[in-house]
Amino acid sequence: MKPFAGVYTPIVTPFRADDAVDEAGLRANVRRWMGTALTGIVVLGSNGEAAQLDDDEADRVVAVARAEVPEGRPFIVGTGRESTRATIAATKRAAREGADAVLVRTPGFFKTQMTGDVFTRHYTDVAEASPVPVLLYNVTMFTGVNLPVDVAVALAQHPNIVGMKESGSDLAQIADYVSRTPDDFTVLAGSATTYFHALCAGCDGGILALAALFPEECARLQALVGADRLEEARALQRRLLPVARSIGTAHGVPALKAALDLLGFTGGLPRPPLRPAPSQIVDLLRTQLGALDALPLVH
Amino acid sequence: MKPFAGVYTPIVTPFRADDAVDEAGLRANVRRWMGTALTGIVVLGSNGEAAQLDDDEADRVVAVARAEVPEGRPFIVGTGRESTRATIAATKRAAREGADAVLVRTPGFFKTQMTGDVFTRHYTDVAEASPVPVLLYNVTMFTGVNLPVDVAVALAQHPNIVGMKESGSDLAQIADYVSRTPDDFTVLAGSATTYFHALCAGCDGGILALAALFPEECARLQALVGADRLEEARALQRRLLPVARSIGTAHGVPALKAALDLLGFTGGLPRPPLRPAPSQIVDLLRTQLGALDALPLVH
Amino acid sequence: MKPFAGVYTPIVTPFRADDAVDEAGLRANVRRWMGTALTGIVVLGSNGEAAQLDDDEADRVVAVARAEVPEGRPFIVGTGRESTRATIAATKRAAREGADAVLVRTPGFFKTQMTGDVFTRHYTDVAEASPVPVLLYNVTMFTGVNLPVDVAVALAQHPNIVGMKESGSDLAQIADYVSRTPDDFTVLAGSATTYFHALCAGCDGGILALAALFPEECARLQALVGADRLEEARALQRRLLPVARSIGTAHGVPALKAALDLLGFTGGLPRPPLRPAPSQIVDLLRTQLGALDALPLVH
Amino acid sequence: MKPFAGVYTPIVTPFRADDAVDEAGLRANVRRWMGTALTGIVVLGSNGEAAQLDDDEADRVVAVARAEVPEGRPFIVGTGRESTRATIAATKRAAREGADAVLVRTPGFFKTQMTGDVFTRHYTDVAEASPVPVLLYNVTMFTGVNLPVDVAVALAQHPNIVGMKESGSDLAQIADYVSRTPDDFTVLAGSATTYFHALCAGCDGGILALAALFPEECARLQALVGADRLEEARALQRRLLPVARSIGTAHGVPALKAALDLLGFTGGLPRPPLRPAPSQIVDLLRTQLGALDALPLVH
Repeated sequence: MKPFAGVYTPIVTPFRADDAVDEAGLRANVRRWMGTALTGIVVLGSNGEAAQLDDDEADRVVAVARAEVPEGRPFIVGTGRESTRATIAATKRAAREGADAVLVRTPGFFKTQMTGDVFTRHYTDVAEASPVPVLLYNVTMFTGVNLPVDVAVALAQHPNIVGMKESGSDLAQIADYVSRTPDDFTVLAGSATTYFHALCAGCDGGILALAALFPEECARLQALVGADRLEEARALQRRLLPVARSIGTAHGVPALKAALDLLGFTGGLPRPPLRPAPSQIVDLLRTQLGALDALPLVH
Repeated sequence: MKPFAGVYTPIVTPFRADDAVDEAGLRANVRRWMGTALTGIVVLGSNGEAAQLDDDEADRVVAVARAEVPEGRPFIVGTGRESTRATIAATKRAAREGADAVLVRTPGFFKTQMTGDVFTRHYTDVAEASPVPVLLYNVTMFTGVNLPVDVAVALAQHPNIVGMKESGSDLAQIADYVSRTPDDFTVLAGSATTYFHALCAGCDGGILALAALFPEECARLQALVGADRLEEARALQRRLLPVARSIGTAHGVPALKAALDLLGFTGGLPRPPLRPAPSQIVDLLRTQLGALDALPLVH
Repeated sequence: MKPFAGVYTPIVTPFRADDAVDEAGLRANVRRWMGTALTGIVVLGSNGEAAQLDDDEADRVVAVARAEVPEGRPFIVGTGRESTRATIAATKRAAREGADAVLVRTPGFFKTQMTGDVFTRHYTDVAEASPVPVLLYNVTMFTGVNLPVDVAVALAQHPNIVGMKESGSDLAQIADYVSRTPDDFTVLAGSATTYFHALCAGCDGGILALAALFPEECARLQALVGADRLEEARALQRRLLPVARSIGTAHGVPALKAALDLLGFTGGLPRPPLRPAPSQIVDLLRTQLGALDALPLVH
Repeated sequence: MKPFAGVYTPIVTPFRADDAVDEAGLRANVRRWMGTALTGIVVLGSNGEAAQLDDDEADRVVAVARAEVPEGRPFIVGTGRESTRATIAATKRAAREGADAVLVRTPGFFKTQMTGDVFTRHYTDVAEASPVPVLLYNVTMFTGVNLPVDVAVALAQHPNIVGMKESGSDLAQIADYVSRTPDDFTVLAGSATTYFHALCAGCDGGILALAALFPEECARLQALVGADRLEEARALQRRLLPVARSIGTAHGVPALKAALDLLGFTGGLPRPPLRPAPSQIVDLLRTQLGALDALPLVH
């Protein structure tokens, strides 16, 4: 069994009207997710608005969430920063707070300088310093840079780099990651709109915002592909697609938070400059969730 | 059974040293392909260097190839031009020469003007005027424009528009074409590097340069996915990938022609400004074909 | 004095309701332009919808326009095609019809194959074969490929390659073309929205759709920059900008034709799949032309 | 006179071998720049590796630099963060430390959510909260998002938003910023490779890495354009271009730091994951600086 294979959600960080973290809401969300088929959770991922939290807030989010995740359910923390130094510092703090692994997005500010050598050195230094296993995280839509397959393949040889999340939808690249990394290296899908396709390409699961709303269905999709039941898997992907699009590139974190609110979670407010989803998007989400029988009976 | 489902190759147009079409080579190639598992062939596609032929040459290529394709094996002709008028004229000539269907790439010169309305009107006018069924053809890598899903879905309602070829590798878009068009509308993959993924997404086959070299394997890949044998299909795609890349975006038509020469077909010269594949690319192809046991015993 | 320095317009090809070339309209247009400050004209450029004309029509357009252009006013013909062979054939026909020079857009269909070597060989072969001087033509917005500075600089050494048109708005690239080509090599701007900037960068004039509507103003802008009257030049550019945008990427050839109609020229219909400018665009153009006092008194 | 018009350099933050800020080097650099024609300096800009500093370090850099800048020379601090809250906090700290103005890059992590409304609200909130004037900062090459002209134009009406820096090289957009903002709104160029062109377009100066190396020349270029001496200005830009390219997109901050070292400043090390410029880049810089007679006599 590959380490960290399975279905995860990168949990949101709910904010209150005063722009502070809603710790009670966060706690209740995690507790509820722990009652689902989710393998584990990721805190401080992109959807956790990690880029908008300061270090104290981030540490607090980790502590609150950690307390609700039972031993044996993987608890992964996003610790990528622009400098190697800050990434290592965040990684050590996360490990101290009980992270089972860290998910480290590529740096990306100085885009033209982000060569293969720079990535290799960065991740190697982080892996050497990290007390817990490291997962690479390639998320071009947010960073504007791409982790080359050759670099990921070389880094996969490092004993403390055990897997990766790829948030793109370039299936040829995903298939390359899968086929060229060692058998015990985990490749997780990060794009819900191509989740089924990534599973067919050989991914070992996913870290999906969609799984916050539909944990059972995301787990079932993996099982169906694993059982070679293509037709059913394709049909399930098709049903989930409209919501996946809405909470993905179309309307982003604000829509994800609104959808969580509709399902009885505490989505809370996004942090400015992000704005809450406007009412027509909330209406669209209500329709899309309703079509999937996902809405609570009374609302 | 969907019309025109299956595996095709967009045949090359071999040129002689004097830059004229090598009709004997063309004839021999088609005859040989007709002895394989290919469903049929496409002449004057992108890989046929159609953009570089004048109308007289194009008509002659159609006539020569037509004579070698038995009844019952679909014979498809590329007739897309920049103007609706020229597209219709080429379509009527192709039908007169015996085309079973025409494959019509989107116009793309005036990129910012290529709106959904423009595409809809263009294809509707072509379909109305065409004596034979029409297949849409979206090939963004060459045209620089994309056929929107909504437009393709609407056009799929036209009784004389029976299918399409999508040469891109955006799996979410391909899945959308498949799921939102009528059940008897054929969607064919055009990118060999994501052929397996497109089949998983529900494509009804492909029109692939790779199938000129590996017709049996391309047919087998479709059969494997159709039989839910994912693991084997994925492994076969993986084996074919290096060659697929070489003759695709990496080295293009010149490499495809060189590979055909290595396999005993008549690849011939590409037409200038395209240049023959340099010797190091030919060596690479020889290695890649050799790894697949594709090279003739004596060469 | 550099050859072909000055201000040109790439004339439109007016079509009648039956989609045939409106020769009378074409003739009248050219005659009227010959009464302006334009240095000369370009026929069969991008704005001439050359990509949508067949060879017979193209030859006829050249003949009709040629008859209206007096000796001494440069008469330039666009002859770029996808193949070297067809480009040379079109070039020889144009020369026979009286072209003073040919403007040869880069081929661009097989984008990944359009390397510096391919361009170099293509243009060298065309220049060797051409009876008249050759102007390079880089128009990335339509071809999707870019003519590298190094390649243009090397080609500028060829005795029969005397200048170029650059339709892009990358000023650093334009400045490079200007500074790195020989003193007698002409660099003409092709983007009206950055015409002033290109003149500041050292361009020797322009080939501009805008000059069909505002020949005097385009000539004056060149004179102002040449006289170091920056403030006035900048102000003039600013005044012309809204119309330049409308007939450029925003609304293209259909808008240019509509604007010509408003000014009493024969814009005529665009050729399908291009559609006539819708009425709201015509209204916008009327307003923009009115603001420049360009509309005829009675209309 | 417009506020903050003039020529600035976004100073580097030199790091020591132990990855700590080299305060002595920083102090010496600022003192030396204060002896040049520079109008003022910007600390914690992109070239200051602000994205890689933690808040304590950032505050310290501000304090050290502030002490070396005499009253009357504008001292500007970069304070852009991903959240509005953190941007305001950094802005207030900078003001407390003596910033004359803050330069606020757009947030850009959630690219698809960065709409005009989001930018408008973000900058308005920052401007309301800031004790000192605010300069907008659009730097698409690093953020992957673009500040639309309409948004900048509207924000320019705010009494506490007094200018902007545009690091792109889209001259049409720069000209739009200039022409559509109020007369007392300052537009500063941020791209050295198009500095001359931006001045022609009406910019009021620049904030340029190049000005760290060539402060007199950058000031002279502005004066030449201001005096309508186009030919000389164009020639000066041309001379500076090779170095501008090297320290810009080509080789970035590491090259800028190496060039500073060559000129006797303390460039210092870049912070990992950035790597020091390799020796062949240092050699290139030495040649380029030598060609400009910029190297100290003995080195």
